[in-house]
Amino acid sequence: MRIALINEVSSRDKNPLVLEALKATGNEIFNVGCTADEGALTYIQTGLMAGIALNTGAADFVVGGCGTGQGFLMSAMQYPGVFCGLIQDSLDAWLFSQINGGNCISLALNKGFGWAGDVNLKYIFEKLFLDPPGRGYPLHRAESQQASRNLLAGISRDTHRDFIDILSRVDRATLETVMNYKPFKEFIDSYGKA
Amino acid sequence: MRIALINEVSSRDKNPLVLEALKATGNEIFNVGCTADEGALTYIQTGLMAGIALNTGAADFVVGGCGTGQGFLMSAMQYPGVFCGLIQDSLDAWLFSQINGGNCISLALNKGFGWAGDVNLKYIFEKLFLDPPGRGYPLHRAESQQASRNLLAGISRDTHRDFIDILSRVDRATLETVMNYKPFKEFIDSYGKA
Amino acid sequence: MRIALINEVSSRDKNPLVLEALKATGNEIFNVGCTADEGALTYIQTGLMAGIALNTGAADFVVGGCGTGQGFLMSAMQYPGVFCGLIQDSLDAWLFSQINGGNCISLALNKGFGWAGDVNLKYIFEKLFLDPPGRGYPLHRAESQQASRNLLAGISRDTHRDFIDILSRVDRATLETVMNYKPFKEFIDSYGKA
Amino acid sequence: MRIALINEVSSRDKNPLVLEALKATGNEIFNVGCTADEGALTYIQTGLMAGIALNTGAADFVVGGCGTGQGFLMSAMQYPGVFCGLIQDSLDAWLFSQINGGNCISLALNKGFGWAGDVNLKYIFEKLFLDPPGRGYPLHRAESQQASRNLLAGISRDTHRDFIDILSRVDRATLETVMNYKPFKEFIDSYGKA
Repeated sequence: MRIALINEVSSRDKNPLVLEALKATGNEIFNVGCTADEGALTYIQTGLMAGIALNTGAADFVVGGCGTGQGFLMSAMQYPGVFCGLIQDSLDAWLFSQINGGNCISLALNKGFGWAGDVNLKYIFEKLFLDPPGRGYPLHRAESQQASRNLLAGISRDTHRDFIDILSRVDRATLETVMNYKPFKEFIDSYGKA
Repeated sequence: MRIALINEVSSRDKNPLVLEALKATGNEIFNVGCTADEGALTYIQTGLMAGIALNTGAADFVVGGCGTGQGFLMSAMQYPGVFCGLIQDSLDAWLFSQINGGNCISLALNKGFGWAGDVNLKYIFEKLFLDPPGRGYPLHRAESQQASRNLLAGISRDTHRDFIDILSRVDRATLETVMNYKPFKEFIDSYGKA
Repeated sequence: MRIALINEVSSRDKNPLVLEALKATGNEIFNVGCTADEGALTYIQTGLMAGIALNTGAADFVVGGCGTGQGFLMSAMQYPGVFCGLIQDSLDAWLFSQINGGNCISLALNKGFGWAGDVNLKYIFEKLFLDPPGRGYPLHRAESQQASRNLLAGISRDTHRDFIDILSRVDRATLETVMNYKPFKEFIDSYGKA
Repeated sequence: MRIALINEVSSRDKNPLVLEALKATGNEIFNVGCTADEGALTYIQTGLMAGIALNTGAADFVVGGCGTGQGFLMSAMQYPGVFCGLIQDSLDAWLFSQINGGNCISLALNKGFGWAGDVNLKYIFEKLFLDPPGRGYPLHRAESQQASRNLLAGISRDTHRDFIDILSRVDRATLETVMNYKPFKEFIDSYGKA
């Protein structure tokens, strides 16, 4: 699985910690947003990046976040086919994978992030990718949860414009910043399907 | 301010607790989703209800939720003009109001909901509506956060179809269930602008 | 390692969940407090049981708790040689084992205990017993943390009466209830050193 | 009410934040441990300070803490008449005041302490001192909780040596450091009863 890590500016000092924790999962990790030293991307920009990464198929899963996680979450959720949860601990992570089976998570990287925040990140990813997604919890609700996920996927297509149409309408400056951000551009060029 | 409370089925036993906590805020509360005894609405349905309530102007603010809060969050966020945060405690609530100034929150009403969960709800609403929304936190980032909120509002319009178009495309069964749900229908009839 | 599980009455319905999660650690588990169906022990009584279990050497580690965890914690900490932390998630658990290396934990079994509370318990024990206790965190403070643990052990002896003396002074009714509680009595008879 | 704030070294940078939040409660606050710039007190030392402050009557309430809160908690709980809870949010605070009615709290000042940690402290103290302590929660258990608090107070006397005896036995270096720490010494000299 290709996982894109896309940090925004206010919590970019946490990027190395998220990256290290993600690498421990054994997946292919692409660090294409802000790093500790570089990048001044806002969550508006990283949310669009999540939309592009998932809609082009460049990424199978996106990990983002911001100070509280709410900004990136709402920004990424503007795009079709993005199903993003706000994940603060390992229990959130496992439940989100089992109930919602989404393809994106948003982390709170300033609020509540103190000592051993890096350890918490390791625990989050450990449980996020532990069990096959979408098995349901509690198990007797598995079927109705599956039905809800399917309906949600359809609704996401129905309520959003086509992604090409979106790219033609979305704020120019935001799109240009995103597509000129070298690590991201190279990632999409290499793995995205036009 | 008119606040619509829209509970889904799996946590409907918590509806009276959320309702009581909301009433203590002094706002006009409309309890239009599941109640403790009635309604079998899924988060797919309550998410559409949030979209309709906000896009028709019937509600100024929507309070929803589900077992973990992630399902209603992702469902409500499918619609234009809905800016929903996942709120688990009073600090989340205050920060969301100050940084994001959204118009919708999703509550975790089964996960982590035990003794004094009702007290936690009271604390959440107390801080959610304490200070004028959107003042920024930390304060030196107020301006850039305001800019992000404005951009997000524009992007929400650009990425979604028009709301009328959405209603014509969205899953029929879901829309019919929602519009035949009496408390909700009456609320929209009374307060929604066509 | 012999672990004594000692539940009090207000959260005794959670006993089977704690027991199952503890058994998964591979240690020897002795369920000697309230069970889902039996026992009306208060945290005053279970705290004394923790003191006896650890001071007789019957248990190497005690797991207790109450509605919020604070009551059992304060009760168990009345006795010499008991070093009890309040543990609410897996990060608490790991940090407590690494920094404090205690021999007792108190769980919040009503407050915040909802959906998947059993999963949270599994995560807690998984990390509590993952690494050798007392290695220190952050690592550069390992030495000073070791010094603090040694000092604390000495202070515990200096501030408390001898355990035999304590048993002769402590509230009669509490001691009798505890020593007449069959599962506990049998446990102490089998494993405690006089 | 006289509240002693007693910070240890690893989280002393948070002292100004705790102090400010405490002052907002309207109580008399005595900042007698580490400050942001001064003091290298360990939790072993601050725990003893809590014991002295409460046993001499210099303080009615002690606020301490450490990186995770567990160290100060276990250290302060070594002394008779100290009833200390671990408090991480405003719900913990209110429940501890209502159920346990203790005279000491320990704060986690590095773990989970990030953005708006200062706001969280304000919320904690707001609820800790909101309602008269010891009213019970849930209310139908008020009487049994009152009984438990009374028993606990008696047990604390029974299990510990007399405080004068403790001072004569406790680690010399620890006691000397504490009694030579000027802000603390002045506080005890002014308000402690011999």
